[in-house]
Amino acid sequence: MLGLLAPTDPDWVLAVEHDLDRLLSDHAHCELKAAHNALSLAGRFGGEAPELVAPLVALALEETEHFQGVEQRLRGRGKTLGLPASDRYVVALRAATKDDQDVPTLLDRLVVAAMIEARSCERFKVLSEGLSDGTLREFYKELMASEATHYRLFSRLAEGRFGVEATRARLQTIAHREAALASSLPLGPTVHG
Amino acid sequence: MLGLLAPTDPDWVLAVEHDLDRLLSDHAHCELKAAHNALSLAGRFGGEAPELVAPLVALALEETEHFQGVEQRLRGRGKTLGLPASDRYVVALRAATKDDQDVPTLLDRLVVAAMIEARSCERFKVLSEGLSDGTLREFYKELMASEATHYRLFSRLAEGRFGVEATRARLQTIAHREAALASSLPLGPTVHG
Repeated sequence: MLGLLAPTDPDWVLAVEHDLDRLLSDHAHCELKAAHNALSLAGRFGGEAPELVAPLVALALEETEHFQGVEQRLRGRGKTLGLPASDRYVVALRAATKDDQDVPTLLDRLVVAAMIEARSCERFKVLSEGLSDGTLREFYKELMASEATHYRLFSRLAEGRFGVEATRARLQTIAHREAALASSLPLGPTVHG
Repeated sequence: MLGLLAPTDPDWVLAVEHDLDRLLSDHAHCELKAAHNALSLAGRFGGEAPELVAPLVALALEETEHFQGVEQRLRGRGKTLGLPASDRYVVALRAATKDDQDVPTLLDRLVVAAMIEARSCERFKVLSEGLSDGTLREFYKELMASEATHYRLFSRLAEGRFGVEATRARLQTIAHREAALASSLPLGPTVHG
């Protein structure tokens, strides 16, 4: 699915069912981090790659609205947002690209963002099929479609700037590292946990 | 104006006129930082103060759109965004609140954000009156109105949570430090320079 090489352990849904509020809070923060990341990319690389600005701004707006949607859902359950926490998966995935010195920073930023969207999409698919709450299943089905669109957006932006071949090769390299990483993390009630 | 205790030196416009492209690039990054700040506040304090989330999300969306507007204007001049740089004024203003240990962090985050909006509003007023380019004068006149609205938003959010009296007292304390700081920085072609 979207170039992912290791499927999520089906037991992950059990960990999520045990603490749906924590999942929603973590998910809200994921959307917020995605908005931050899109804005950072626009600010850091908008000068050398002006064609990125409009799509990244549109993405940041969408991620911000998703954050609000998830936060409202949490509040609808009588809960509020937890404190932001570092996302081990994202931190480790970024670190896993650092050793390859000949790869342009922007290519890796786009490829890593694409991989995170791909994994989020796959996780939302698992939720949309496995959660016992029908409303939440529907919610994650809709969001799953967005994440797939975002995966394609980041891939396309990378291909436009670095070529189809270089982008696919890098996506494949990072996909191997991502699969090893995703399989090694303990299962918990977080989007990437 | 909006509680500011030191007006901007009229010579600042001369520094700006010398490098309008740098002003626009710095200004675009200011809008981006404001969007980041609104999202960070929503994520960090949305749990303890859920009433902040909706207005901060709306603000982040507006600041992101402003970023895009300024970036497009820069491109209309045949230029692109410069690299992001640290804003000495903002860094120093944040540092100037650190010593008062009894003040809640959220109150200071809101008050500092209000002060930055107030100063930006005043700077945009100076530009809307002093720039030689009529189109840019008009552009800054519109944005000046937004910054005033944002100043009131942050003040109102602080008042709602910490009371009118405590908020006004803190705004006044920080306004004195802000005035000293704004007067001490060298004049340059940046929004807060």
